Amino acid sequence: MLTQLQEEKVFKDPVHHSIYVQDMTIWKLINTPEFQRLRRIRQLGTSYLTFHGAEHSRFSHSLGVYEITRKIISQFERNGFTDWPQEEKLLSLCAALLHDVGHGPFSHSLEQIFHTDHEQWTCDIILGQTEVNRVLRDVDPQFPDKVASVICKKYEKPIVVSLVSSQMDADRMDYLLRDAYFTGVNYGTFDLDRILRVLRPYKGKIVVKESGMHAVEDYLMSRYQMYWQVYFHPVTRSSEIVLRQILRRASELHKEGYEFGFMLPPIRGLLEGSISLRHYLKLDEAMLQTAFGQWQEEKDELLSDLCGRFLNRQLYKYVQLEQQDSSWLDEIKQEWRQIGLNPDYHMEVDTPMDSPYDVYKPGTLPDGKEKPPILLLDDQEQLTEISVKSDIIQSIAGLQRGKYYIYYPEENVLPHAHKLSSDTRKKLSI
Amino acid sequence: MLTQLQEEKVFKDPVHHSIYVQDMTIWKLINTPEFQRLRRIRQLGTSYLTFHGAEHSRFSHSLGVYEITRKIISQFERNGFTDWPQEEKLLSLCAALLHDVGHGPFSHSLEQIFHTDHEQWTCDIILGQTEVNRVLRDVDPQFPDKVASVICKKYEKPIVVSLVSSQMDADRMDYLLRDAYFTGVNYGTFDLDRILRVLRPYKGKIVVKESGMHAVEDYLMSRYQMYWQVYFHPVTRSSEIVLRQILRRASELHKEGYEFGFMLPPIRGLLEGSISLRHYLKLDEAMLQTAFGQWQEEKDELLSDLCGRFLNRQLYKYVQLEQQDSSWLDEIKQEWRQIGLNPDYHMEVDTPMDSPYDVYKPGTLPDGKEKPPILLLDDQEQLTEISVKSDIIQSIAGLQRGKYYIYYPEENVLPHAHKLSSDTRKKLSI
Amino acid sequence: MLTQLQEEKVFKDPVHHSIYVQDMTIWKLINTPEFQRLRRIRQLGTSYLTFHGAEHSRFSHSLGVYEITRKIISQFERNGFTDWPQEEKLLSLCAALLHDVGHGPFSHSLEQIFHTDHEQWTCDIILGQTEVNRVLRDVDPQFPDKVASVICKKYEKPIVVSLVSSQMDADRMDYLLRDAYFTGVNYGTFDLDRILRVLRPYKGKIVVKESGMHAVEDYLMSRYQMYWQVYFHPVTRSSEIVLRQILRRASELHKEGYEFGFMLPPIRGLLEGSISLRHYLKLDEAMLQTAFGQWQEEKDELLSDLCGRFLNRQLYKYVQLEQQDSSWLDEIKQEWRQIGLNPDYHMEVDTPMDSPYDVYKPGTLPDGKEKPPILLLDDQEQLTEISVKSDIIQSIAGLQRGKYYIYYPEENVLPHAHKLSSDTRKKLSI
Amino acid sequence: MLTQLQEEKVFKDPVHHSIYVQDMTIWKLINTPEFQRLRRIRQLGTSYLTFHGAEHSRFSHSLGVYEITRKIISQFERNGFTDWPQEEKLLSLCAALLHDVGHGPFSHSLEQIFHTDHEQWTCDIILGQTEVNRVLRDVDPQFPDKVASVICKKYEKPIVVSLVSSQMDADRMDYLLRDAYFTGVNYGTFDLDRILRVLRPYKGKIVVKESGMHAVEDYLMSRYQMYWQVYFHPVTRSSEIVLRQILRRASELHKEGYEFGFMLPPIRGLLEGSISLRHYLKLDEAMLQTAFGQWQEEKDELLSDLCGRFLNRQLYKYVQLEQQDSSWLDEIKQEWRQIGLNPDYHMEVDTPMDSPYDVYKPGTLPDGKEKPPILLLDDQEQLTEISVKSDIIQSIAGLQRGKYYIYYPEENVLPHAHKLSSDTRKKLSI
Repeated sequence: MLTQLQEEKVFKDPVHHSIYVQDMTIWKLINTPEFQRLRRIRQLGTSYLTFHGAEHSRFSHSLGVYEITRKIISQFERNGFTDWPQEEKLLSLCAALLHDVGHGPFSHSLEQIFHTDHEQWTCDIILGQTEVNRVLRDVDPQFPDKVASVICKKYEKPIVVSLVSSQMDADRMDYLLRDAYFTGVNYGTFDLDRILRVLRPYKGKIVVKESGMHAVEDYLMSRYQMYWQVYFHPVTRSSEIVLRQILRRASELHKEGYEFGFMLPPIRGLLEGSISLRHYLKLDEAMLQTAFGQWQEEKDELLSDLCGRFLNRQLYKYVQLEQQDSSWLDEIKQEWRQIGLNPDYHMEVDTPMDSPYDVYKPGTLPDGKEKPPILLLDDQEQLTEISVKSDIIQSIAGLQRGKYYIYYPEENVLPHAHKLSSDTRKKLSI
Repeated sequence: MLTQLQEEKVFKDPVHHSIYVQDMTIWKLINTPEFQRLRRIRQLGTSYLTFHGAEHSRFSHSLGVYEITRKIISQFERNGFTDWPQEEKLLSLCAALLHDVGHGPFSHSLEQIFHTDHEQWTCDIILGQTEVNRVLRDVDPQFPDKVASVICKKYEKPIVVSLVSSQMDADRMDYLLRDAYFTGVNYGTFDLDRILRVLRPYKGKIVVKESGMHAVEDYLMSRYQMYWQVYFHPVTRSSEIVLRQILRRASELHKEGYEFGFMLPPIRGLLEGSISLRHYLKLDEAMLQTAFGQWQEEKDELLSDLCGRFLNRQLYKYVQLEQQDSSWLDEIKQEWRQIGLNPDYHMEVDTPMDSPYDVYKPGTLPDGKEKPPILLLDDQEQLTEISVKSDIIQSIAGLQRGKYYIYYPEENVLPHAHKLSSDTRKKLSI
Repeated sequence: MLTQLQEEKVFKDPVHHSIYVQDMTIWKLINTPEFQRLRRIRQLGTSYLTFHGAEHSRFSHSLGVYEITRKIISQFERNGFTDWPQEEKLLSLCAALLHDVGHGPFSHSLEQIFHTDHEQWTCDIILGQTEVNRVLRDVDPQFPDKVASVICKKYEKPIVVSLVSSQMDADRMDYLLRDAYFTGVNYGTFDLDRILRVLRPYKGKIVVKESGMHAVEDYLMSRYQMYWQVYFHPVTRSSEIVLRQILRRASELHKEGYEFGFMLPPIRGLLEGSISLRHYLKLDEAMLQTAFGQWQEEKDELLSDLCGRFLNRQLYKYVQLEQQDSSWLDEIKQEWRQIGLNPDYHMEVDTPMDSPYDVYKPGTLPDGKEKPPILLLDDQEQLTEISVKSDIIQSIAGLQRGKYYIYYPEENVLPHAHKLSSDTRKKLSI
Repeated sequence: MLTQLQEEKVFKDPVHHSIYVQDMTIWKLINTPEFQRLRRIRQLGTSYLTFHGAEHSRFSHSLGVYEITRKIISQFERNGFTDWPQEEKLLSLCAALLHDVGHGPFSHSLEQIFHTDHEQWTCDIILGQTEVNRVLRDVDPQFPDKVASVICKKYEKPIVVSLVSSQMDADRMDYLLRDAYFTGVNYGTFDLDRILRVLRPYKGKIVVKESGMHAVEDYLMSRYQMYWQVYFHPVTRSSEIVLRQILRRASELHKEGYEFGFMLPPIRGLLEGSISLRHYLKLDEAMLQTAFGQWQEEKDELLSDLCGRFLNRQLYKYVQLEQQDSSWLDEIKQEWRQIGLNPDYHMEVDTPMDSPYDVYKPGTLPDGKEKPPILLLDDQEQLTEISVKSDIIQSIAGLQRGKYYIYYPEENVLPHAHKLSSDTRKKLSI
């Protein structure tokens, strides 16, 4: 099923040094317009407004996930582990490469406002009338379905699914390393080589040799640090809030029949909740940014102001609250109106519930969404869930701490500060 | 003149680890829309199509140049060197930060087609009706003029100019390190700390302590490697050719009165050669990419094809030629026409003259454009031009080698290969 | 009190890149025979037998501790923090540089067998008839006493003591980074720059700005990983056991009046428990290794065998035990005798009690040995012990897990395996 | 011939991250006393007195050379290159591992004074009554001879020899990277992965794919920088001079029948020029340092002073001379005698002839000692010597520059400075 390239292709990659492509199908998938489109979508959405180095694209991350998967399988093959189904190599590599192909621009914000689902788009791209689908069908007419079922976690062999989707999958390993590299923080760096060396296929699962326990601890701690230092950074949250408000306002205006000075069909499709695959594939960050640039000149002041804030990085200020204080929140909305602000847009409270996050949690949840636990394999071929043996992981499993923040446009508030209650002024440190 | 920030601001930077802002003017400049706009312009133009990590922006490079300048001055101050004019600190820092503020999207290609000049735009931004100008005027009404004169290399104190513009200036030091980091090649890495330590202000110049000679050799070799491995990479050249052809075709069509399905005022201004500062500041890579995406559906097939090539990375193939062979080049144009191709667009020869480059050349050129040489300061306070003492630098000074390449759309040629002359087929390895 | 060097001296250091010496006293201290002697004593004792890169000396570590201390103080001075007693700079730097000057070869093993105390030797060197003492007295006749009192943690200003000795002192920060660098593991790497930036002198203590909490978490996790992956590595423990047995056997023989084929006065002094300062300063790892090499030819077979084992790295095998099992340990000693082995030398059990270790523990212990806790300073200038705010640190504070291992010479046991009880064979996996 | 280990062994290595041992013979060789002895011999001799991190041993370098050789062969096998004689794998690996096993302490200095030859000792160890020989004979009775012939460059298949000994062999690649890592300079870092990827076995030689030319340039520049910045550093030369003088003085005294207060058989063998293999294997840096420590108390003042200088790092001062000036050198010897110094010991001139060095030189020399040139293999399977195609390499090939330095004990000269001629005072900057 694999058609080897005459000479392997090498991509220079800052994280993995080199990425090796040995199979013709992979090479062709990379060169499809749908995959090249990922170059125009940043891996970390608006995080570049907090960490200026974080400009890297989903294209490079997708190559990285492919490369880690390739290395894992290569280790399995080199050691001749019989629990690894060798015939699933190409399927695994394709699923790894394509797992994020359905992501749109600023995906998480988009999905919140327009209720789209990047995983669904991924399947649509794999199964629809696309170049990706054509390349996959050349392997076998059933091949697109198989690739989609791996990505949707429905494939019959869980070991293949777990390569791309588990507590310690190729996806997470690549993004932790890559995001750390490009942001420049040095928390996300764990010993990838060592982890790759201690993985074992075992009775339909991928498990970890017990001697690798400390390396897994280190990986989980990296995850913890990256979440708090990068992914949940309040400045990034602020930029996401402004972005979501732009999208929300545009949607609202569109519903009201507002006539935009600048509009393009994919954006209209988005606002109407009926975007086609062809248009979705046109939608990239460049298009949204161009729209925001043009909308700066819209007559709707709210939209215009929000777009300028996003492009010029004049974000909302944030203040940490001791705790949720619903009576004060009601009150502040009132005060906001009194000073001419719109509480639906000019403030937002970010609660821990908005960032549910576990460093690691063993056991499955009722909704079945939980990823399977990390298992250690000892010399006696016994499997043990890792937190049983690792005190560190036991300590942090299920740990959850969130902070309450309130976000608002400081420039609009300050001139009216004297009209605010003393309680509000104190809480906002004005 | 410097107004210190209450607490210094720190930007996390992957190359310099941290970038420190201690002065209020610098902080305000960074937050102007004109400077924030640099986030939307890639430092290396189309190089991301060759090195997928090279997505970094001119914003991060500009901060890096500022930081290196800050470190150099800080070293001068710490050592109490009297040849350094202390009162020029803020001016130097502002010039370093703003030296690239006039760059547009895909600057070098744009300038070739539309004859714009980013240095002129930089001065326009500094002197025109902008936020940058307003912040600089707050320092002193004459301050914008001074900053502009440093960037245009006309400032009365050459030592200030040379910080930002010389054979070994903060600009070059940052981009070599930064471009190496983001592309992932490891050629560009020289010992910045050591070089910063051996710089000395001396009689109106910045010179190098003789003990630092080997560090300078290493820096020049990095430059050499980065030029050949990254900046002149033939795939990057190919993408620039496709990009320039898009711009050329659009310009041609516009002159012919062609009605574009998608057009925006800044692009129209560009095509007409009369773009205003306000529109120039709107012009970013997102806007051009959005236009290219829309132009894929133009009825002009040439424009549509070129735009698709650029966005989907279906670039022109390249073949190295032994030497310029003008009679064959005439002949191939003829053959191109016979197989239905347009030799004005479907082929391009890249000659060494198109990439003039010296690793290092001492002495000034007639046009006065040449940057001053690197001088070594020995224990007896004698200055010597570095190639006199360094055999390595003497060997490579003035070295120039170029390669001839021909670029063309392979997919359009292959079906007609049998109609080409045997000479052409051999030269193109068809 | 500080006499600046005309030009600062720079040591190239792989961990800190450069180490800067600006003061004449520091320069002179480095050049004393007592400090140069640290070049002949490895930082990690026998760890090089586990990690072959770990050949680095206490000389380089001592310079590193000096450099970190210098950087901390420099940050305090740059920010003009009034809680830092500026007049204590030279004292702090000298104490940092000299804090380990009393270490002998394979210090920890030596101290266990001969009950010497490196901290006592440090004071003897600082206060005795040495070059170090002479250089310190040149500053001020009382200066040696002050330096010694800082190192013995008795100096009147605790802030000075805490620079060199606390839960997060310059000593620990350097050794974690240095040991990680030279062993090649990448667990010990935390963000030193960031930690240095968030330290503050505050009311006689050194505290951490709250925004630096995550950086401290990362530092403590590095510590945890280094302990389990490097410092307590069972192969290193095995080499220490063999080393201690050599020393114990030599001591025993000496007491019995045994005539050694090779002996030198410092070693004799050690065996007799009455070594003079002059002889102690002669005692380095080279001398011990030379003795072991010569003792390979001693007629006492036990000593000869142990010396060969140490030099040729034929260490004792280790087997992890589920738990302490004293009845079996009594039994195995009996079995050992039956197969001609000496249970006093040919086996050793390593229990968790031998490696007491806390990642971090707030609060002082009854014996007063405990180092003060890490305190966070928030925006309201409130101090909070870090584990109150950090869930991660709360989870791991006080965590203690040890493993039981039994060590023995496998080669001597295997030929007699059939004579051992089945219980013993099973436990030893023979 | 290869007996695979049940599970591959992994050494943690700071330079190569991991070193993999898959074959039983290699594992056994590493565990011989003769190979373990390399742990007690520093890779860079006295360089640790200049770069304090340079404490790394020939043991770690030997493992590194083995690992690079293993990687090269593994690449050849993975690509199925038929020009690589697969049956020579174990031979190549053993030769790589053992190529330096005959090195003694401070090898280069020792060889200069006592005219021993480490390559000869290597063969003696491989062919003599040693554990190494026993392990090799277990493979095949002729195997030791084959390994020795590879190391002596007489093996019938030059491709095997060139792996370990050529202009770009595994030996040089490891030591450049390793010495750069441990000294902390960042000149020695070239792209090993890339070089390993472009090597090809071709008609009995190892050649470089033309696309790898720039990587080779970078490697040669690293070599150039390491020579001038590290290997020929004047402080290291000074320490070697003091070391050689110790050995020369001891030899002289021994010839005169001087009775040493401390002597050991291997050192006596060395001084008498008749050291046996058994004694040579006992001779390590620890033994020499111990001797020097004891000799500090010898009644011969010259010997005692030199030993103290070496151990306490009170080296000779150096002054660069414009050029060799033989009449002045005659004169200064006279002056030295007048102030009571011994010109045979208290001064030494280091001339460029003492450090013959080429960055790279194509073509063989009359004595046949020259290593074969680096050949590029182009797409047409033509071989070209690299300096023909690389301007940079052409420029530096054969480049040779040396500096004259005079070394002398400054402390002994300064008190008598007024008695020296003005010419001498000027030249020595006194």
